[in-house]
Amino acid sequence: MTASNTHSFAVILVEPQLGENIGMCARAMWNCGVTDLRLVNPRDGWPSDSARAAASGADVVIDQVRVFTSTEEAIADLNFVLATTARSRDMTKPVFTPAAAVGEMKRRTRDAHRSGVLFGKEAWGLNNDDVTLADAVLTVPLNPAFTSLNLAQAVLLLSYEWFNLDDETTAHELRIPSDTRPANKQELTMLFEHLERELDKANFFMVSEKRPTTVRKLRNMLSRADMTEQEVRMFRGIISTLCRGKPGD
Amino acid sequence: MTASNTHSFAVILVEPQLGENIGMCARAMWNCGVTDLRLVNPRDGWPSDSARAAASGADVVIDQVRVFTSTEEAIADLNFVLATTARSRDMTKPVFTPAAAVGEMKRRTRDAHRSGVLFGKEAWGLNNDDVTLADAVLTVPLNPAFTSLNLAQAVLLLSYEWFNLDDETTAHELRIPSDTRPANKQELTMLFEHLERELDKANFFMVSEKRPTTVRKLRNMLSRADMTEQEVRMFRGIISTLCRGKPGD
Repeated sequence: MTASNTHSFAVILVEPQLGENIGMCARAMWNCGVTDLRLVNPRDGWPSDSARAAASGADVVIDQVRVFTSTEEAIADLNFVLATTARSRDMTKPVFTPAAAVGEMKRRTRDAHRSGVLFGKEAWGLNNDDVTLADAVLTVPLNPAFTSLNLAQAVLLLSYEWFNLDDETTAHELRIPSDTRPANKQELTMLFEHLERELDKANFFMVSEKRPTTVRKLRNMLSRADMTEQEVRMFRGIISTLCRGKPGD
Repeated sequence: MTASNTHSFAVILVEPQLGENIGMCARAMWNCGVTDLRLVNPRDGWPSDSARAAASGADVVIDQVRVFTSTEEAIADLNFVLATTARSRDMTKPVFTPAAAVGEMKRRTRDAHRSGVLFGKEAWGLNNDDVTLADAVLTVPLNPAFTSLNLAQAVLLLSYEWFNLDDETTAHELRIPSDTRPANKQELTMLFEHLERELDKANFFMVSEKRPTTVRKLRNMLSRADMTEQEVRMFRGIISTLCRGKPGD
């Protein structure tokens, strides 16, 4: 067991049928840095070549898979267990969305509690005894007309929520190549004045009372482009090129 | 085009290779109520039996697929287009996470703007010309050691964020079968008193000074079980059964 295992939750596949599905689960887990994969009675045995192939390089997960002969054994070391199910079961159980489930599991991780999530044969194929073993039910809110989610996709949604909870990626930013930087206001002002000078020469502002309004519109539009210093130079080159040889130069 | 299309974003697959992948994308979309699927030059042509099979019943998406011969045509009616890419491109472009992208697309929907997301051959296989056509780049934050996400899973993550933004599912609740209801405090108090009466008779509280503390612990524990009225009756039945025939009865 690697260090990362102690900070992750366990994915427990109960009686998974196809090795390919197991591999796709491993891939989705490792996409999100989740590594603790446990199998209860995989139909086609373990290890599985088709699982390794479908994992597409997520060997770190495949290499650590543990196989158990009962769900009870597979969850023995865990403190908090969720059972995924789409159907409303006739049970009195707390029900979590993926985001709330991940929040609860993360909170428990801080107290050194270990958590795991049970997934049935197909995405939602847990039997009632397995659901009863869990502390709570996990249900993914989906289009009520079409809730059939495949196994790896259910595992991905949960793993992605887990990864996202601590992820600090900026939600929205302007990415700029490393060989340039955002233009500063002086560079932009010089660009605006260059353009307006040429427009004056070319009699673009036919009604002089409207010049200030048109200039403001133009400056607003060009400001929204968030130009880099490189782009300002390119734009000034374009203006110079287009004006070359015009009367009055 | 159905009514739902006008409220959804468009998923545009540029030169998808396998019909199976197209079908899995359709399934992931319909799981989240997204229906507008567009293909640019699918390698194996259209319609595709393998796509329909892999869609596992998401026929509403498959039936409405539109095929185009260029990315420009496929996005012609859209106002805001995102390009999915994992690699850092040498371009000056705004970059969105899936959650931020969905927020921006939803906001634009309210202004009747139409949005779409471009996906390349494999999950991130867009060429630079296609990325340039887009207003912004969409990058899914993933384990930096393993960012290879399959096409349908990239489509699922985005569709799921879209569905979730308006979804009003309670994050965490206790689900109770319809033939019962949460116990009320009177029922719980009667249960507690029943149990404590029997424990008194059986000399469970050996040190009488500790009785109040132990009773509090017991009541706290049983309160956390959030019992239904049915469960209270069952529990009282258990107490009665276990005490039957004891000396003192």
